[in-house]
Amino acid sequence: MILLKLNPKTDISLHKQIVQRIIEMIEKDVLPAGSKLPSTRQLSEKLGVDRSTVYKAYQELNALGYLESKPGSYTTVRKRPKVAVDINKQRSSLIDWEEEFNNPSNCVYEFFLSHENEENGAGSKDFLDFTCLSLDKRLFPIDDLRRCLNTVLVNQGKEILGYGSPFGYQPLREYIANRLQTHGISLQSDNILITNGCQQALDLIIKLFGSPDKKVVVEAPTYFDIIPLLKYYKVGVIEIPMLSDGLDLAYLEKKLKKEKPAFIYTIPNFHNPTGIATSQNHREELLSIAEKYKVPIIEDGFEEEMKYFGKVSLPIKSMDKNQIVFYLGTFSKSLFAGIRIGWIVADKECIKRLAALKKFTDLGSNTIVQTAMYEFCRNGYYDLHLKRIHRAYRKRMQTVLRVMEEELPENVTWTKPDGGYTIWVTLKESYRDLETLKKVMRENKVIVSPGRFFYYGPCPDKSFRISISYLNEEEILIGIKRLAKALRALQKK
Amino acid sequence: MILLKLNPKTDISLHKQIVQRIIEMIEKDVLPAGSKLPSTRQLSEKLGVDRSTVYKAYQELNALGYLESKPGSYTTVRKRPKVAVDINKQRSSLIDWEEEFNNPSNCVYEFFLSHENEENGAGSKDFLDFTCLSLDKRLFPIDDLRRCLNTVLVNQGKEILGYGSPFGYQPLREYIANRLQTHGISLQSDNILITNGCQQALDLIIKLFGSPDKKVVVEAPTYFDIIPLLKYYKVGVIEIPMLSDGLDLAYLEKKLKKEKPAFIYTIPNFHNPTGIATSQNHREELLSIAEKYKVPIIEDGFEEEMKYFGKVSLPIKSMDKNQIVFYLGTFSKSLFAGIRIGWIVADKECIKRLAALKKFTDLGSNTIVQTAMYEFCRNGYYDLHLKRIHRAYRKRMQTVLRVMEEELPENVTWTKPDGGYTIWVTLKESYRDLETLKKVMRENKVIVSPGRFFYYGPCPDKSFRISISYLNEEEILIGIKRLAKALRALQKK
Repeated sequence: MILLKLNPKTDISLHKQIVQRIIEMIEKDVLPAGSKLPSTRQLSEKLGVDRSTVYKAYQELNALGYLESKPGSYTTVRKRPKVAVDINKQRSSLIDWEEEFNNPSNCVYEFFLSHENEENGAGSKDFLDFTCLSLDKRLFPIDDLRRCLNTVLVNQGKEILGYGSPFGYQPLREYIANRLQTHGISLQSDNILITNGCQQALDLIIKLFGSPDKKVVVEAPTYFDIIPLLKYYKVGVIEIPMLSDGLDLAYLEKKLKKEKPAFIYTIPNFHNPTGIATSQNHREELLSIAEKYKVPIIEDGFEEEMKYFGKVSLPIKSMDKNQIVFYLGTFSKSLFAGIRIGWIVADKECIKRLAALKKFTDLGSNTIVQTAMYEFCRNGYYDLHLKRIHRAYRKRMQTVLRVMEEELPENVTWTKPDGGYTIWVTLKESYRDLETLKKVMRENKVIVSPGRFFYYGPCPDKSFRISISYLNEEEILIGIKRLAKALRALQKK
Repeated sequence: MILLKLNPKTDISLHKQIVQRIIEMIEKDVLPAGSKLPSTRQLSEKLGVDRSTVYKAYQELNALGYLESKPGSYTTVRKRPKVAVDINKQRSSLIDWEEEFNNPSNCVYEFFLSHENEENGAGSKDFLDFTCLSLDKRLFPIDDLRRCLNTVLVNQGKEILGYGSPFGYQPLREYIANRLQTHGISLQSDNILITNGCQQALDLIIKLFGSPDKKVVVEAPTYFDIIPLLKYYKVGVIEIPMLSDGLDLAYLEKKLKKEKPAFIYTIPNFHNPTGIATSQNHREELLSIAEKYKVPIIEDGFEEEMKYFGKVSLPIKSMDKNQIVFYLGTFSKSLFAGIRIGWIVADKECIKRLAALKKFTDLGSNTIVQTAMYEFCRNGYYDLHLKRIHRAYRKRMQTVLRVMEEELPENVTWTKPDGGYTIWVTLKESYRDLETLKKVMRENKVIVSPGRFFYYGPCPDKSFRISISYLNEEEILIGIKRLAKALRALQKK
């Protein structure tokens, strides 16, 4: 008969204590494989506990693989391999993982690592961070969102915790459709697919159109995080240079004459990274070129709502009579980055295709969050919030442009955005190399995003991006002064 | 001078009224392109409104593309194309989309459509739905979740609305690591990647290992929604038949001798669709075969927490000394399907690779929901909920198995699961075809999942899956009686 001692004074329940003691005895070979265990009745009498307690312990030991019992027979200790050693003490040597991973995932991983290194220091309080594209946390209307979450869970709780439609939460699709009509786009809710932010929208679109025998057109520079996606899907890239008023249309047309790409990816408002907003004429011309060569346009309208100076034109999608434009929007850049709600507007049939891809990628987005977001919009909190951040960022953009004018050395130029957060700074001469730029910035406790991150191919090391989304006016003032010092130091190297 | 009439008594703000009137005049060509507009001062005097109101209206019209103004000059009506016609009245004919979509996305779409058709009728109240794998809504602890969301937004609001780590919310990773230790798995939090449910976990794993020159091993039948993913990535498939105690190990070994697949995908607990749980011996043997041939195992532990009869063995991952097992878990099948939180457990380096892929797929999961989920678990609500649903489903499974025994006709057999929700029903003879099965079920107001959905390749039309996740005992009773009637009808056809 086995010896077991229970401690009635601890927090640990009696059945857990039995489990632990028996495991100890098995691990220490006090109870070797094949040993008979007492019956539940015997053990419960011996220990002076309820029989159901022992029964529960045996069940758990069974599930943990320590015991086995056959009908009508004793419970015995099972022969089993030792439980795995600590997972981190011993790296697997059985499989050479590097050989197993496919090539494109290696490209993505390299990109990820370089990105991760870039973000070091951003967490430090001493640094002023001009790299971040998230909105300033101090402007978040958290209580409004909290109230909305409460309301929807109280009123619709049981309805919104199951799988949602892969197309997205229907009332939110309708809200977005109505809102986009104020931006001149004619659409209905079934022209909309809700995604986990713009990034998933891009993933799905590349999944739909991309393949290794095709190329896509991107602006140079372009949105940083589309680059690893294109690399993953082995899609070729045609880079079209950005001029001061948007991508070089003549060059684009020259390229399109030679080959037909899968799509043209463009960011007409406050282009990331340059901050350039294209004119109505540029938009019309781009659309008519795309129509002529029958190439879909992916219009990234991620900052549609950030036209806080009110000067910017309608989306290309608003002129899209032939339904060749896929329009991307998001709440991330006007509300919370972490909300992870974006959308695609397109031809109904294309939306169905994208929904199918979305469904098997993640079975659909979180419905609770979409429902709360709809409640937030429906109550006017979103409009209120936009007013507030328009006021804040109008001032911040005015401040940063004024201070740059006052502080930055000669031989440095920059864009003067009509909205959004990003400014593109260009030196007359190339700086020595990436490391020098980073070192000088670090020494001056300021962080910027080096230009080359935004190019698919090679580029001169002359530019960098600053973003004012995370900093208030006071911080901008100090930050630009530091930047000025850094640029002077950089020009001497 | 233009004529404008404002209505002071409506809800529409004055500046909006000005915008609307001017748009009307432009659309109707009362104000043709090139027309001069009065200055803001002139118009404000004329209308008796504040000048800033007119200014705001002009700004909006500018942004909408109706006006243009050059510095030091009048504002004029812009020449512009008419805004796009209603998007749904006119299908695009400029681009032949079918030609633009890539091949694998077509496969996914076909799968999606067939799936969608299957789900018709499921919404009807008259039908008893044995297809659904979501938990019964009536068991949802919504108020507990609501309290958790409140708490985290009050206490951590500003911290959790930005982008989260692509690895997932750290305290939740730690909680999951601790919990998995009770299932015998040795791990630390950095062996965990949080995903948008198990489906995204599968997508990422196929993204990491899959390529058109490789094959993967799946059970036949297997989890329905992995099939379109494998088709999308053009990964070949080796189907290993399920026997009554799990996949056919001898057949697997025969296959592995011939070629090395990218991985083996297996569902050891309450296999979907068959409900089979493999024995400890089967798990050990499968692992040792995988080690011998150096093939990673993807262990889908989606119902690890649903061992409500307490008889089932430890995960394969618990024996995985050589770190070749990727273990998938989820809250979807034990809590809310819509919560969209799952995880992958693997070697640390592999987790980093997967996090990189995750980052560029969607920039990371929603942090609010992860934080609330952590709070929910930390407060013991998850354990409490599990106890409740264990009690409920234990009874339901006992009921369904008893009623099937009583009601179903001869020549029909079925699995007797030790947990989970799904039961695999097999007829002695093949039924005529899929349409006949569906028709007979429909006539008897009951819905089941036809067996062939769970096979990659062809299979005999002899089986179907029923799931009890959505139905209570009373509904099960009625449903099985209807099923019995349907089966009798089916055998006559």
